[in-house]
Amino acid sequence: MDSATLLYHLHAEGHELKALAIDYGQRHGKELEGAQRLANYLDVPFSKVDLASVAKLLQGSSQTDTTVDVPEGHYSDENMKLTVVPNRNMIMLAVAIGHAASLGYRNVAYGAHSGDHAIYPDCREEFASAMNTAALLCDWNKVNLIRPFIEMDKGDICILGNKLKVPWKDTWTCYKGLEKSCGKCGSCTERLEAFEKAGVTDPLHYA
Amino acid sequence: MDSATLLYHLHAEGHELKALAIDYGQRHGKELEGAQRLANYLDVPFSKVDLASVAKLLQGSSQTDTTVDVPEGHYSDENMKLTVVPNRNMIMLAVAIGHAASLGYRNVAYGAHSGDHAIYPDCREEFASAMNTAALLCDWNKVNLIRPFIEMDKGDICILGNKLKVPWKDTWTCYKGLEKSCGKCGSCTERLEAFEKAGVTDPLHYA
Repeated sequence: MDSATLLYHLHAEGHELKALAIDYGQRHGKELEGAQRLANYLDVPFSKVDLASVAKLLQGSSQTDTTVDVPEGHYSDENMKLTVVPNRNMIMLAVAIGHAASLGYRNVAYGAHSGDHAIYPDCREEFASAMNTAALLCDWNKVNLIRPFIEMDKGDICILGNKLKVPWKDTWTCYKGLEKSCGKCGSCTERLEAFEKAGVTDPLHYA
Repeated sequence: MDSATLLYHLHAEGHELKALAIDYGQRHGKELEGAQRLANYLDVPFSKVDLASVAKLLQGSSQTDTTVDVPEGHYSDENMKLTVVPNRNMIMLAVAIGHAASLGYRNVAYGAHSGDHAIYPDCREEFASAMNTAALLCDWNKVNLIRPFIEMDKGDICILGNKLKVPWKDTWTCYKGLEKSCGKCGSCTERLEAFEKAGVTDPLHYA
């Protein structure tokens, strides 16, 4: 819902956009189909990159390793560390930056927000700052990393997305990636709290 | 020859090693077969990651786009910019860092040297420094980026590799990736100068 709202927000602002979705072997690969539909609705060119070969090198996360159960509960719980995919964000940003540089684009935008949790080291401000420095230096086309939602929490994002008429039915959040959302993993828990804060009904089906 | 000598150097120092080779759709994919053989000689575990899907997003380089001719001459020539693959080093480092973090390894070593040329923005000191900062922050396992050859030039690397008995016949340098090395591209030119400085005979066949 963060990336979806970001796409609608940047589109509403009138920017020339290109959407990039990354298959890193995530259990919840359904989110990629939703991403494609959203880009189609807005007539934004869409690319999907396949990093399944990379995912095999990043072991031990419940998000990419089906032998590890997805933990339930709140992100603040210790067991949520199982959902960390080592260096996921640097890898995804590196690919997006390379793509932007090759097109001569000036910015890579991503949906980081103030509620991103301390269990993910690559969501920290210091990390984002180091990556931005590297992005500005990596190519003769300077690429900026921008995080338009960094001062907002997920509830604020839900409120904004609602204003922008983001079709929530095409977004996917649950880490388990089954037919219905589980409603119990850290990601579902946070989504449900965001919809409650926004006073909006979530159209997804929950188990 | 830089990565090959690095592997032999770290092996001689007695480190626990894992070799990672990256297929980014380079014309000179022959270098990957050589890398596998070198790791086998030393009994070092070897992985190859397939980033061909990513390469499609990084357009306009002679190294990945067969519609662009490989330029001939010296690296200092303006036309050598055609060999730049946008953000190649950040992408390769990001994958290696994630792999190291998932294994609990403390270092990622790569063969950057003092002769790496100014046409490659992602060979600059400031870029390496920003990436090192990001690597230390991206995971709970701190990963250091190390460049043991950064004070050496390619001639020095050839001298060291010779001492360590690196089998030069299994290394590959030419950007064209044909049956024989071309002897004319920037990469061949630099290799031949390095062997000359070291007073060593290059066993590769040149066209």
